[in-house]
Amino acid sequence: MTAPLHEARPAGPGRALPDTQQGMRRRNLARVLHTVGAEGPLSRAQVASRIGLTRAAVSTLVDELIRSGLVEELGPERPGRVGRPGSALAVSGRGPAGVGAEVGVDHLAACVVDLRGEVRARAVRHGTNRGRPPEPVAEELTGLIRQVVAKAEQLGLWPAGLAVAVPGLIARDGRTVVRAPNLDWHDTDLGALLPAGLPLTVDNEANLGALAELWLGDDTPRDFLHVSAEIGIGAAVVVDGRLLRGTRGFAGELGHVPVEPEGPRCPCGGRGCLEQYAGEEAVLRAAGLEPGEDRVGLLAARAAEGDEKVRRALHDAGTALGVALTGAVNLLDPEAVVLGGALAALAPWLLPSLRAELARRTAGPACPVSVSRLGPEGPLLGAAHAVVRAVLDDPAAVAERG
Amino acid sequence: MTAPLHEARPAGPGRALPDTQQGMRRRNLARVLHTVGAEGPLSRAQVASRIGLTRAAVSTLVDELIRSGLVEELGPERPGRVGRPGSALAVSGRGPAGVGAEVGVDHLAACVVDLRGEVRARAVRHGTNRGRPPEPVAEELTGLIRQVVAKAEQLGLWPAGLAVAVPGLIARDGRTVVRAPNLDWHDTDLGALLPAGLPLTVDNEANLGALAELWLGDDTPRDFLHVSAEIGIGAAVVVDGRLLRGTRGFAGELGHVPVEPEGPRCPCGGRGCLEQYAGEEAVLRAAGLEPGEDRVGLLAARAAEGDEKVRRALHDAGTALGVALTGAVNLLDPEAVVLGGALAALAPWLLPSLRAELARRTAGPACPVSVSRLGPEGPLLGAAHAVVRAVLDDPAAVAERG
Repeated sequence: MTAPLHEARPAGPGRALPDTQQGMRRRNLARVLHTVGAEGPLSRAQVASRIGLTRAAVSTLVDELIRSGLVEELGPERPGRVGRPGSALAVSGRGPAGVGAEVGVDHLAACVVDLRGEVRARAVRHGTNRGRPPEPVAEELTGLIRQVVAKAEQLGLWPAGLAVAVPGLIARDGRTVVRAPNLDWHDTDLGALLPAGLPLTVDNEANLGALAELWLGDDTPRDFLHVSAEIGIGAAVVVDGRLLRGTRGFAGELGHVPVEPEGPRCPCGGRGCLEQYAGEEAVLRAAGLEPGEDRVGLLAARAAEGDEKVRRALHDAGTALGVALTGAVNLLDPEAVVLGGALAALAPWLLPSLRAELARRTAGPACPVSVSRLGPEGPLLGAAHAVVRAVLDDPAAVAERG
Repeated sequence: MTAPLHEARPAGPGRALPDTQQGMRRRNLARVLHTVGAEGPLSRAQVASRIGLTRAAVSTLVDELIRSGLVEELGPERPGRVGRPGSALAVSGRGPAGVGAEVGVDHLAACVVDLRGEVRARAVRHGTNRGRPPEPVAEELTGLIRQVVAKAEQLGLWPAGLAVAVPGLIARDGRTVVRAPNLDWHDTDLGALLPAGLPLTVDNEANLGALAELWLGDDTPRDFLHVSAEIGIGAAVVVDGRLLRGTRGFAGELGHVPVEPEGPRCPCGGRGCLEQYAGEEAVLRAAGLEPGEDRVGLLAARAAEGDEKVRRALHDAGTALGVALTGAVNLLDPEAVVLGGALAALAPWLLPSLRAELARRTAGPACPVSVSRLGPEGPLLGAAHAVVRAVLDDPAAVAERG
């Protein structure tokens, strides 16, 4: 364990609230905060009418949120309204904030997002992490985290929690990296290597990218399949606005869905897995390119220049994605498929064959496929917003400790 | 609409309860009823200690449940305990009950299940429904339903709702059969053809079979994939004890997951779908058998006799199931796969190749595959129990109308 980062006043993410008077108060605090966040600035009376509680009940709840630094008063409303002038309420731009961090194969990053959803501090370090042991990577990441937290504290914010995106399978304990093949990490307790004193969650990058899409995307439906790629191909299944995690936390392994039952061997133990056709290395090989630092950039640049071999390789990868997604769509019946991460950058050359394959295998209208606008930023933003959401969902936990 | 079956006092299944004093009372009624159902007979004091409410609060709730006929007193507890003797409480074997019905390809059935989960009335009619229009089938089914309801009423029960299992895709309205290929039904409002006056749900047979497995199976986990077959191959995904239905209600179409991307054409529009390798007709064809009335029985009998061609056909079907399930397991990370319906009867000849294929494609331990003990009864039981669960989940809805 490293030294505490901060005298933490942590939020309790995702705790079940008991069904008592006290539990009801906690849930109503969350409803007031969510309403002010989603529709503010609002007066107390407007909040009361939105959520169907009395003005008096809402006032008590608002006072508590103001005392905890979660809500602030913007000053009196414009005059001319009937009744005593109220003061407009808004979610605070100071107080608790979410810290997000990311271990990428070729970069490290950290950021702080306030309760309004704005990024207030950010730090990035480029350079490969392939084959580096977890300890120096975590140390470097801790440096970036301390840097963004220090900046945020100057702005009157304090970290309510830390979430870290990793390109690998994460155990349901939310701290152990079971397998991250492109980092060559196995059974690594990453939680133990990161700053102590803050509530911490380590999660798969595709999961956090999908949450970012859900929360920050344009008209993202509440049931969708998010497909992303850095080196491997990951996916995340969102059902009714919630991540489907799976028993071990390993759901969404689209990269290992068989596409050709007797195709080439895959390191996972299978044969003909999607990654053997649409993974970055397979595509580079098919395109006749050498893997370098910015593989996706290289593929996109060559495809844009009209390189036929690269275009053919991406076309075939799109077809393989279409076969695997046909199976996924049949199983899950999502409202949409969203391509994120590296796949978003390659979408112009993947999408036509991917969509054709889905359509060819579907009697009715095929599931729509769209491209994320968040691109490679998704997982980092998803991480920070996951902490912010936990505060908004149970503000009493912060209030008690604040 | 046909004439009302009964002066109904319907339960409101799955309604969201408001977060108010009244909502809290409704949820606590459900908690008391669930506790008595799961652990009864219990005294009021035991219920209070189980759910963490005061004895006085529990007494008020219990009185309400007794007045509505949902709970009954079994008489005084055995003496010798400390304090005033309490009366043991149990869920009532009279009062509201669930009516389940099933449209099978080769049969129709109906049953009534009481709040204790016991089947109190049952009626079956054998004979094919292939190519019959929905109207006469619904009329015949209505006859069976009236028969079991009349029997149940003699026993002091009254129907709280009706759920109907159908082998096809059901719209999320819970009444329209969008497509049932083996009945040759399309866009059929089955709800309009069934007895009026009762809350009604039409659902896919694989979904209801999975719920039966969840509620009645031996140690069924809360995250599993249920695979069943009558003529086609259906599946249902259960996540944290809840069915994953999909946007249109079509989730679980395992039969149309591609197994060989350039395999034979499938009526669904695809190519090389699982049903082309493991569907009943494909297996009969591969085994060199003519489709008759009891296809599964024929396959099982021949395989048991040692018919090599039939065994080979089932072996190959198991392999194809293994390929499709590898994809499903990678996407969903379930705790187990359960084979139900017709697949349960053929399990001895399907399982070895199915398990081998899953293991061959998995680096770590493969997902365990088990066989349902409910067999072909699953969907019918699941239907009746779905109604019973709705009553147990919101007893206030019944109490208000009872």
